Amino acid sequence: VSLPPKDPTALPSSRGAALTTLGERELIERIKQHLPPPPDWVKLGVGDDAAVLEPERGMLDVVTTDVMIEGIHFERTFMTMEDIGYKALAINLSDLAAMGARPRAIVLSLALPAQDILVSEVDELLAGIISLAKEHEVALIGGNIACSPGPLFVDITALGSVKRRAVLSRSGAKPGDGLYVTGTVGAASAGFQWLTKSNQRNAPNQDGNITPCVARFKRPDPRVKVGMLMGRNRVPNAAIDLSDGLGDAIHNLTGHGLFGAIIDATSIPIHPGARTWFEQQGLDPVSAAIQGGEDYELLLAISPTPRSRVTLARRFAEKVTLTHIGTVTNEADLILRQPDGDAPLPTGFRHF
Amino acid sequence: VSLPPKDPTALPSSRGAALTTLGERELIERIKQHLPPPPDWVKLGVGDDAAVLEPERGMLDVVTTDVMIEGIHFERTFMTMEDIGYKALAINLSDLAAMGARPRAIVLSLALPAQDILVSEVDELLAGIISLAKEHEVALIGGNIACSPGPLFVDITALGSVKRRAVLSRSGAKPGDGLYVTGTVGAASAGFQWLTKSNQRNAPNQDGNITPCVARFKRPDPRVKVGMLMGRNRVPNAAIDLSDGLGDAIHNLTGHGLFGAIIDATSIPIHPGARTWFEQQGLDPVSAAIQGGEDYELLLAISPTPRSRVTLARRFAEKVTLTHIGTVTNEADLILRQPDGDAPLPTGFRHF
Repeated sequence: VSLPPKDPTALPSSRGAALTTLGERELIERIKQHLPPPPDWVKLGVGDDAAVLEPERGMLDVVTTDVMIEGIHFERTFMTMEDIGYKALAINLSDLAAMGARPRAIVLSLALPAQDILVSEVDELLAGIISLAKEHEVALIGGNIACSPGPLFVDITALGSVKRRAVLSRSGAKPGDGLYVTGTVGAASAGFQWLTKSNQRNAPNQDGNITPCVARFKRPDPRVKVGMLMGRNRVPNAAIDLSDGLGDAIHNLTGHGLFGAIIDATSIPIHPGARTWFEQQGLDPVSAAIQGGEDYELLLAISPTPRSRVTLARRFAEKVTLTHIGTVTNEADLILRQPDGDAPLPTGFRHF
Repeated sequence: VSLPPKDPTALPSSRGAALTTLGERELIERIKQHLPPPPDWVKLGVGDDAAVLEPERGMLDVVTTDVMIEGIHFERTFMTMEDIGYKALAINLSDLAAMGARPRAIVLSLALPAQDILVSEVDELLAGIISLAKEHEVALIGGNIACSPGPLFVDITALGSVKRRAVLSRSGAKPGDGLYVTGTVGAASAGFQWLTKSNQRNAPNQDGNITPCVARFKRPDPRVKVGMLMGRNRVPNAAIDLSDGLGDAIHNLTGHGLFGAIIDATSIPIHPGARTWFEQQGLDPVSAAIQGGEDYELLLAISPTPRSRVTLARRFAEKVTLTHIGTVTNEADLILRQPDGDAPLPTGFRHF
């Protein structure tokens, strides 16, 4: 079968065209052109009924799926198609990171509002996915393209591998474990609030505080390497990523009431730009940072003994900070310890 | 962590309730209750950041994803939630069958129109998935639940395993190969036409012809065992499932113009109920059956020598018929040989 040339600039005729001018097969051929050559463990990639992979020898397979839906997770008025693609992959890589897994491959399920999307926009969406995939050496091995009668859906299933001994699960935290969080929290939530208020693509030049928050919301940086190093060296007893907020993550890591936790409010590493934004909005920065989701940092439960575990954890966090924010307790309550007294931890529970 | 009781009847309070009364976590707990215990090769199932599986020893992993979207693939006015769940899994199992793979596990990504769906309907959707999953010994190991601002989306990624030598791909057909199709074609398309015309859930009692066609559209029977037997015994040179119609499948199996085919119109196993329906609608049954999709039968390219291959193929087709409908040729043309002369094969090309 002869394929179109690899250079996307060699297909100028359809770049400005509506998607309705292309068939599904042409679109898949177009996607194949943009893909780097697959690694040798991909036995069959994009274009057959299914993809075929060689599992990694001696390793377990790790599988996760996460979706980005227009009108729920993003608006096309404030995220570029590249941002949407990038983030759809990032949120899946974050789940693999939270298992200690090495990402290997993804399948992509797209539902496209055909009447309302350009071929060039599909290219941009794909470019966003591919740029992050390259960074983490992840192969796009297959997928599915359908029409959507409404919103744009970008659903990714990510496959990774992990040694049996290196699996990081959500369960395993014990009373006495320290709770540690990578990086900072609150930024994605502040960025999202700014975007929904202003409903525009670009962060304002005049307010330097919000710019990094908007960037964090649009392009979270999944802690893939940190998760792998932590798992391989069996540093934490349990791990989870901060997709639904720090409060929700603490709730999960303490077994939904099996144990409890005391969190030191003053130690929570709130992103400085987010703190400023929350204060400007008349919100309590601590509460807002605990409830706000989508930071995609990791929360880890680490036994205080041997001490070498904490030392290793700090080393493995590499370029991101690792902050001790509290302790797992035997009591079922989740407590926020503030300078003016204890309060229940805000959990940011989300109804449908 | 204490879980709610396994018996779904023990939770009557939320069965008639709107989904908005449940949180995502309650919904996931609800799903966990309905699941049979996972097999021992599932190291971590529903509820963590990702699922963890033991790959099957000495086998390759097979991965496919396919989606059902309200307003595109179905209407809730004419399919029950159980049908929708059943079919969402069936179309994925069909892709694995077309690779010769044994299905093992699925992850489920749901986007639910929260304002417009009952908890009991989510239960029914799940029941449809689980009933077919049990039949094929497939484990539901994880997934994701999101809100949809519009249509219901049911996206499944299926994982299977296959021996290296048993992979059935779409490429590999050679000039001279016979083209064989399992079962009958046209029924799903006729059933869909009837459903969209009548826009009601149940097939009419007065017209017995259309009833099996409607059933085929709603609950296709993926040819899992046939595909596995064919692959293990290396019977076909190439295989594909009939998701987008026989014409499209022939186009794929002949390498999109690399080779061609001559198809004998009179040999195409058109479903008798579909034939009657197409004739009643003033359509040419052969053309309609070739263009109509969603039958989820298999198309196989089988070398005529040794003859034992065709004999084996007939044996492995088991309870479904296996019909010789034509031959792969060196010429690039796809020809439909009719009693009154040759014509180009209708391909049923679908624009977005």
